[in-house]
Amino acid sequence: MSRCGYGCVERGTGGLRVVAAGVITTAGDLPLPERLAEVARELRGLVDELRPSAVAVERVLFQSNARTAMSVGQASGLALVAAAEAGCPVHQYSANEVKCAVAGYGAASKAQVQEMVTVVLGLPSPPRPPDVADALALAICEHTMAPWRRSVSAAAGGGVGAL
Amino acid sequence: MSRCGYGCVERGTGGLRVVAAGVITTAGDLPLPERLAEVARELRGLVDELRPSAVAVERVLFQSNARTAMSVGQASGLALVAAAEAGCPVHQYSANEVKCAVAGYGAASKAQVQEMVTVVLGLPSPPRPPDVADALALAICEHTMAPWRRSVSAAAGGGVGAL
Repeated sequence: MSRCGYGCVERGTGGLRVVAAGVITTAGDLPLPERLAEVARELRGLVDELRPSAVAVERVLFQSNARTAMSVGQASGLALVAAAEAGCPVHQYSANEVKCAVAGYGAASKAQVQEMVTVVLGLPSPPRPPDVADALALAICEHTMAPWRRSVSAAAGGGVGAL
Repeated sequence: MSRCGYGCVERGTGGLRVVAAGVITTAGDLPLPERLAEVARELRGLVDELRPSAVAVERVLFQSNARTAMSVGQASGLALVAAAEAGCPVHQYSANEVKCAVAGYGAASKAQVQEMVTVVLGLPSPPRPPDVADALALAICEHTMAPWRRSVSAAAGGGVGAL
């Protein structure tokens, strides 16, 4: 895994806005266990510092590259644990679910999603690198889905009540 | 992920012997993030308690089931991080490498590997469930490979010097 984007979005009176966004990178010459430990440390630090009311992590449905898929699985597991250990509700969304929530349909292109993220968050230009835009799209997706999840959860009599 | 086998093997005067072995299981009705956090906690506890001089984790080369592969990736990432955070050298071996080290050839059957594990460790019967036998086979593989790795490392002038 070469990098892991993150984005924190809050809802204010004027709509959604970016609180923090960036990319966790690790030295490519370090052995994998140390790189993963570094990612885990950074993720814990972000959750500690930002104290989000919910965390969204991409649910990866496997495709093409086995090697990439494995490292994405490892990083996503670390993100899920960082959130759970901080007592933070965490949800997973597939790329298609994110596209539906952000751009209105699951077959939206990367460029369309980036454009929507830019507009929705009132940014001067699309976030770079694309990993940051993807992470912000996930955060927007969580904001979109949260009220819906609450109402379903209430209708079902409470239950998970994640947010 | 439903369970994660572990095994700790030490070399004594009479050969290799089992120090601890078992399976980490998590409640199937818990959400995934909590289950992974539980696995992470148990793995940290094991490393703390057993203080191994090295940790071996299976390197999964993807196959058939995408869903299984994803959760195996997540659990393996947690094991790599638990070892790295404890300052413990950690190595990954593919199932074929383990079979080569334990049973002498990469196409050995599961049953043959289990039989070799039973004999090498002087156990009265094959370890159950199979996840435990797989974990013990990994530990034996690490013992087999460690001297070889040391000599290569020395020949290369030190370098990683993991063990």
